[in-house]
Amino acid sequence: MKEIKVFAPATVANVVCGFDVLGFAVNEPGDEVVMRLVEKPGVRLLKITGDEGRLPLDSNKNTVSASVQHYLQHLNRPDIGVEIELHKKMPIGSGLGSSSASTVAGLFAINQLMGNLLSAKELVPFAMKGEELACGYGHADNVAPALMGGFVLVRSYNPLDLVVLPTPNNLFAAIVYPEVDVPTKDARQMIRSKVLLKDAVTQWGNVAGLVAGLCLDDVELMGRSMQDVLVEPVRSILIPGFEQLRELAMENGALGFGISGSGPSVFALTKDAAAAKRVTKAQQQHLNKLNINSKAFVSAVNAEGPKVL
Amino acid sequence: MKEIKVFAPATVANVVCGFDVLGFAVNEPGDEVVMRLVEKPGVRLLKITGDEGRLPLDSNKNTVSASVQHYLQHLNRPDIGVEIELHKKMPIGSGLGSSSASTVAGLFAINQLMGNLLSAKELVPFAMKGEELACGYGHADNVAPALMGGFVLVRSYNPLDLVVLPTPNNLFAAIVYPEVDVPTKDARQMIRSKVLLKDAVTQWGNVAGLVAGLCLDDVELMGRSMQDVLVEPVRSILIPGFEQLRELAMENGALGFGISGSGPSVFALTKDAAAAKRVTKAQQQHLNKLNINSKAFVSAVNAEGPKVL
Repeated sequence: MKEIKVFAPATVANVVCGFDVLGFAVNEPGDEVVMRLVEKPGVRLLKITGDEGRLPLDSNKNTVSASVQHYLQHLNRPDIGVEIELHKKMPIGSGLGSSSASTVAGLFAINQLMGNLLSAKELVPFAMKGEELACGYGHADNVAPALMGGFVLVRSYNPLDLVVLPTPNNLFAAIVYPEVDVPTKDARQMIRSKVLLKDAVTQWGNVAGLVAGLCLDDVELMGRSMQDVLVEPVRSILIPGFEQLRELAMENGALGFGISGSGPSVFALTKDAAAAKRVTKAQQQHLNKLNINSKAFVSAVNAEGPKVL
Repeated sequence: MKEIKVFAPATVANVVCGFDVLGFAVNEPGDEVVMRLVEKPGVRLLKITGDEGRLPLDSNKNTVSASVQHYLQHLNRPDIGVEIELHKKMPIGSGLGSSSASTVAGLFAINQLMGNLLSAKELVPFAMKGEELACGYGHADNVAPALMGGFVLVRSYNPLDLVVLPTPNNLFAAIVYPEVDVPTKDARQMIRSKVLLKDAVTQWGNVAGLVAGLCLDDVELMGRSMQDVLVEPVRSILIPGFEQLRELAMENGALGFGISGSGPSVFALTKDAAAAKRVTKAQQQHLNKLNINSKAFVSAVNAEGPKVL
């Protein structure tokens, strides 16, 4: 019996100005999957811990088992038997790519058990299927960085074109998850389907600036580029004290600040761990005053993606 | 009497997917300005050659003299006397930054004569004033690369934030100007003020990809990113045989192809001079069959900006 235990990282999608095209992975939090190859064919999800009963245990409906099924179908291996345990180690519905982390952990695990038949990049489409199941839309800006590590640009969805961008040294993420509920589906539906061209131009100037900052190791340019005139003004309404959280981030040395994915988590990028810790501390104190529980994560950018534990 | 002769380069604005935020300079064509410091205060445009009488000789209305006036006003030097000759060496209304080349040549010349008081970057706002005069809109995607050389990203207009991007070695531009009339003002007015968010996302994925390609020296990525779902579908209507010109470019080894600025000039980027020559030759032959006169320019990317002749 072959068994493997895998960690896959949380991810910050959008990165403020890169709606649907940019994301990066962090070292914590993340999810763990234990996977076993067994005699009896089929994919079975045996157990989920840490989800407070919120995730489906049905192997066809859970994104982890469903994407492992897709993977094995693709390889035309209905003979393979797989047992899965999912250990949620991060908050669900937090805007930190929770479903993505689980799905990616599962795909990385099965690919390891099958002898690494596909590259991280090749696994992305299977993980996107999982995202479709979890939130109704097969986006790649969480699963691509979770699988490939670092900052990943989704240059195009059709055909899928993924570019791993360089990460400046010592870049840290300061993440705070205010424990309020913002389902991804609702957060998407708030966004207008038409936008002003002039706002779109502002946005793509910033996306281009953020990518240039990453590539040219210019963290100040990255910070200046972390502005979102299209999505944040709408989504931030759902996040209590958002503008105050921004001020606290910037006062405490953040390069830039914004919503992680569809929220409610917020994140800042900083030049070092100390600034990241100052940011999360100040923000958690503020949320505390508002009687909102929160969780904080301070982490370097995760350059490697999932790993075997 | 101090006299100087200056060349400033033509520029390709937008670079397909970077509407209003990207541009690059070429070695040819370009414009020349001869400038003299004289006793009698004031800025006088004495002569224009090569414009077929299309440009105003009134010193307050011509972009060259008007932006030199702005420059001297900024320095608070009403005592300075300047005589200017403008020698147009490139087609007007071609989408190659013709007004920009003239304006930039003038600003570079006066700045040289005054002892290089401002940097190339600091001259950009003065040149933008000239653009406002020439085409009703003070954009920077021609004047910034004309002044600074290379590929320039206009990350933000307010405040103005310009980023010079690295240029991959041996990158060539193949430019063809079909001699049909497309005034910049009209070309701008054709563009819708609202766009679909999903199209904007496609566009900023491509802008990000193009910038990443430039920074990471990945010319294939640059080529894949040179797609414009927003502006090109509208503007290309004004360019005869546009889709055929694209096919000829791609068949002859172009990395990517599109409209230069607001057209009617088209350009391709290629990996070397030979491919650029093949592209322009095939395109000119095609335009010839359509009974459209054309001019072609094959040039490396201009890394230095204006120069003293």
